[in-house]
Amino acid sequence: MLEEKLKHIIRDVYDFPKPGIVFKDITSLLQNAQLCEEMVDAFVEQVKDCKLDAVAGIESRGFLFGMMLANRLKIPFVPIRKQGKLPFHTISESYALEYGQATIEMHEDAFPKGSRILIHDDLLATGGTVVAASKLIEKLGGEIAGYCFVISLDFLNSQGRLTRFSPHVFSLAHYK
Amino acid sequence: MLEEKLKHIIRDVYDFPKPGIVFKDITSLLQNAQLCEEMVDAFVEQVKDCKLDAVAGIESRGFLFGMMLANRLKIPFVPIRKQGKLPFHTISESYALEYGQATIEMHEDAFPKGSRILIHDDLLATGGTVVAASKLIEKLGGEIAGYCFVISLDFLNSQGRLTRFSPHVFSLAHYK
Repeated sequence: MLEEKLKHIIRDVYDFPKPGIVFKDITSLLQNAQLCEEMVDAFVEQVKDCKLDAVAGIESRGFLFGMMLANRLKIPFVPIRKQGKLPFHTISESYALEYGQATIEMHEDAFPKGSRILIHDDLLATGGTVVAASKLIEKLGGEIAGYCFVISLDFLNSQGRLTRFSPHVFSLAHYK
Repeated sequence: MLEEKLKHIIRDVYDFPKPGIVFKDITSLLQNAQLCEEMVDAFVEQVKDCKLDAVAGIESRGFLFGMMLANRLKIPFVPIRKQGKLPFHTISESYALEYGQATIEMHEDAFPKGSRILIHDDLLATGGTVVAASKLIEKLGGEIAGYCFVISLDFLNSQGRLTRFSPHVFSLAHYK
């Protein structure tokens, strides 16, 4: 089963980025191209009823599978980036992080109004970044069609912060 | 022809990141999934004689096509990231940027010694980041099998900085 396989390969790194945190390292997954392909297959299956117009991926790790997924679905990929990185006219959204504060941005012409957007990131933790990304999409007149993550830290109970935007919240590996 | 198509779609953004610079914005390419597929096809064709064991992509924009290319070639993807981002044991390399200084890192267990690595980034400008990435690969006992970029700013004449490591330097769109 894919979830078991992923959990077997995802690496726990202790005390990163600060003491007491156990970081889920996905770089070990990237060493296995066959597995990455299966992950994209699984995402495609999960989101097949979401009627998507584009996939938005959150910098940087959300670019890895987000871009592959968009390409497989034959729809545009929209990069959501840290402040100051996107060169054209942007809209931005700030949010509280577990370790400080951050601002993310999206190009003003990222997609046409009314587009149905799937938001992708590698990991759902407290959901702060993903909620900010959702607000960016809505600011531009997009609809949140759903969310997909490689990993969901279910014990942080942040799924409810996303279901306000869309009921479709998918992950490949859940940590209860 | 692909190069003409790309140049037509790549967007020039003036005075980014600072006055006087004309930035090549590739986000417009990402809106066209069919074109992205053709770009990966073209990369595959360019590197077909490089005998690759892995593709290393440079954060963040190098993750977009680097990951797709690795997956298409059915070989591992190695992320090269900015300092402090990779959670496991890392090696690092600092270099001078046009706008300051920077450090990039790679995991110590990114690939086995003797692996032949293709380095990918979206853009070859002065080559500072790419040379630093090459040194990281060599530090770990890897061989530089080649380089591929979406865009090469040929007028900056940095190709020679890379051919010291490998004669195989490819780009999809050249600006003379």
